Amino acid sequence: MPNEQALAELQSFLGDRLARSKSERTQHGVNETWFPPTLPDAVAYPQTTEEVSRIVATCARSGCPVVAWGTGTSLEGHALAIAGGISLDMGRMNRVLEVRAEDMQAVVQPGVTREALNTELRATGLMFPVDPGANASLGGMAATRASGTTTVRYGTMRDNVMALEVVLADGRVIRTGTQARKSSAGYDLTGLFVGSEGTLGIITELTLRLHGQPEAISAAVCAFDDFEAAVATVIATIQMGIPMARIEFVDETTAAIFNAQNGTQLPEKPHLMVEFHGSESSAADDARRFGEVVADMGGAHFDWATTTENRNRLWAMRHGAYPACIASRPGCMGLVTDICVPISRLAEAVRETREDIAKSGISGPILGHVGDGNFHAILLIERDNAEELKTAKALARRMAERALRLGGTITGEHGVGAGKKDLMTMEHGEAWDVMARIKRALDPDGILNPGKVVEVAQ
Amino acid sequence: MPNEQALAELQSFLGDRLARSKSERTQHGVNETWFPPTLPDAVAYPQTTEEVSRIVATCARSGCPVVAWGTGTSLEGHALAIAGGISLDMGRMNRVLEVRAEDMQAVVQPGVTREALNTELRATGLMFPVDPGANASLGGMAATRASGTTTVRYGTMRDNVMALEVVLADGRVIRTGTQARKSSAGYDLTGLFVGSEGTLGIITELTLRLHGQPEAISAAVCAFDDFEAAVATVIATIQMGIPMARIEFVDETTAAIFNAQNGTQLPEKPHLMVEFHGSESSAADDARRFGEVVADMGGAHFDWATTTENRNRLWAMRHGAYPACIASRPGCMGLVTDICVPISRLAEAVRETREDIAKSGISGPILGHVGDGNFHAILLIERDNAEELKTAKALARRMAERALRLGGTITGEHGVGAGKKDLMTMEHGEAWDVMARIKRALDPDGILNPGKVVEVAQ
Repeated sequence: MPNEQALAELQSFLGDRLARSKSERTQHGVNETWFPPTLPDAVAYPQTTEEVSRIVATCARSGCPVVAWGTGTSLEGHALAIAGGISLDMGRMNRVLEVRAEDMQAVVQPGVTREALNTELRATGLMFPVDPGANASLGGMAATRASGTTTVRYGTMRDNVMALEVVLADGRVIRTGTQARKSSAGYDLTGLFVGSEGTLGIITELTLRLHGQPEAISAAVCAFDDFEAAVATVIATIQMGIPMARIEFVDETTAAIFNAQNGTQLPEKPHLMVEFHGSESSAADDARRFGEVVADMGGAHFDWATTTENRNRLWAMRHGAYPACIASRPGCMGLVTDICVPISRLAEAVRETREDIAKSGISGPILGHVGDGNFHAILLIERDNAEELKTAKALARRMAERALRLGGTITGEHGVGAGKKDLMTMEHGEAWDVMARIKRALDPDGILNPGKVVEVAQ
Repeated sequence: MPNEQALAELQSFLGDRLARSKSERTQHGVNETWFPPTLPDAVAYPQTTEEVSRIVATCARSGCPVVAWGTGTSLEGHALAIAGGISLDMGRMNRVLEVRAEDMQAVVQPGVTREALNTELRATGLMFPVDPGANASLGGMAATRASGTTTVRYGTMRDNVMALEVVLADGRVIRTGTQARKSSAGYDLTGLFVGSEGTLGIITELTLRLHGQPEAISAAVCAFDDFEAAVATVIATIQMGIPMARIEFVDETTAAIFNAQNGTQLPEKPHLMVEFHGSESSAADDARRFGEVVADMGGAHFDWATTTENRNRLWAMRHGAYPACIASRPGCMGLVTDICVPISRLAEAVRETREDIAKSGISGPILGHVGDGNFHAILLIERDNAEELKTAKALARRMAERALRLGGTITGEHGVGAGKKDLMTMEHGEAWDVMARIKRALDPDGILNPGKVVEVAQ
């Protein structure tokens, strides 16, 4: 086993924080979607940046792969050690190091989850808004450039990570970015590491941009006779400049699944779920104007959820959509697609996707962050049914092709991982080679999360 | 002359669009601040991406430097051909290629200026808000990651460039980004080229994010007894979440210069100049709340400029600050500093800078985009006075050191160019070497704007 030497060295300074048991390796070898289990050779649990640096330097010497692990909630097999090596579990680096309320910044270790941070921030009047649904680690969210339901208002991780500490492939530790709100001091390395999926360096500290907790929040659910009307409502709302904090679409299949799982009585029609943040008067004003747009578009069943309890129930339902869909077909698993198109092409993209799914014979509820033009089909396939997996992959590929034809991207927020590499040339052409050159420049031996994002001849 | 062969080849397909006259070379060899004139060997005027590609490929074959030129308004000698070679004047690639109003995007060639774009957009209800003062080219603004007075609300070029077409150092043409509002399909190459100052590639097309023209705008000027009160007003306004579109600081020296140059009667005190964008009711509400903060902080002389004419006069005065300062001391030139610190350290940074300038014997009005923590001292020095230049450079260096000590950056928006390279290690440490590795990976022969941003051993 070529990694044995590295493992022995790691054991010498990590002790029982290098785990080699089958159970821990299995825990770090599974994923939330269709990728087959792939066990790492060992799991390391660093507690400090210095340990991460030493682990990476040790692995570098013998070419042993290092694959960072946050909470394992990514959907494209990002954290699977497909070439063996170490799964670097960042979960014990989970301290909020500093909250600088005056500058609206927090400094955190990568293992802090977004919910843990927001719990810590509760009394400060501040919040970290990026919300991909899962209670992911902030390091993982940065590494995959996560976004989610609030992106339409607050941006993605790209917009909310100000500075990083990163361990490079040779073990050196660098800092990117500053505490200032902007800088033009050279290449944007922070932006380069955000979204690099652990292939260029290991994030060991993040400085995050915080936002004020809104004085007032209002939320609503409304149903439409067809999805075209729902999408037209989104476009009109954006064009009127009504500032939405969230605007989510779920189709009639998803609404039916919600009813079955949550005991709700939503009409089994396409829905929009929206939220407005602001002062008491501006949130009310935004809601009123949005209500007028909905009425113009023939929307109905307009339920406001102004109490915190109702609102939490609403978003819990939305965030629970993925497990609810999985549960709706016993014995199934989900292949979750993730395309993003310009808003003007959203109706077209959704329509073609619905028709394609309908023809396939597979069930595929559609939902998404339509304020960004981003939507998912959750393709529900039988576990170990190769035929259905093949059909689902073909549907996913056609979705990606459709996204590109309409000016969009093969992945709005889930990332590339192992699952979308074969689509990268289609989106980027020669620019994919530029990515590979950057990878080779920063990780010449290819030890950091090998086999992901780029194709590098070793 | 080693570049002769490249020049002969270029002449063969550019004809008289390769200029070698002294006057055109001089025009592309000067700059707006203290850098000595540095003439390129020739000036090329491409009209298409294909021509840019052919020019770069030709130069690559003989190692001839290629330095992109926009409008020549940058302040750190970015566009000077300090190693000779070609000045690539993008001014004839100045078409707005497409306005996609529904998606709030415009596709432009790099030579389009921000004012030309906004003129073209006037009837659409949309605008491009990034405003560095000068009527710079959008290609140049992207290359230097420009920002300016409206950044506090609308972000920098990093936030407003969605996609690029770029000619690489070997002449290949790539596209980065898409028309979708977000993507997590691999490394953020758009973000990497934005701010790379022509050292990694030549931008030949930009897709820009547009914003709605505000329904209502209000602006105000108010004076404070001391700059601490002005800065405290900025911090309080940010913390109350009052959305400013601009918030600019000018000190008492700048106010006096404004009076002398514009015939205004501003009190010779520190001032804030602010602007609010929104609906009629929200802009009025924001202005009212801001007025309360100003009163709390002891601010006075609160002049509202609600008419377009008065507002334009206000911002013309602010944007004219640099030439006004230069004109205030006959025969002088300006060394313009540009640091950015966290808001919580802004008062400290300004106070120390004022004291340092006062001790130096040089005049240095201070002004800046204080909503971002970014400010400039315009150090007014006698032309050809080596002693004063040395004093000014030492002041600038101490400002940079101060910015770093306070958690900030050596340049908020002017960039590195030739002027700030010696400060890069101080800010970035080993991360500067990462930038150099990226440079070498994308431009192994170092032909693109050599001598800028990074240090690469050839």
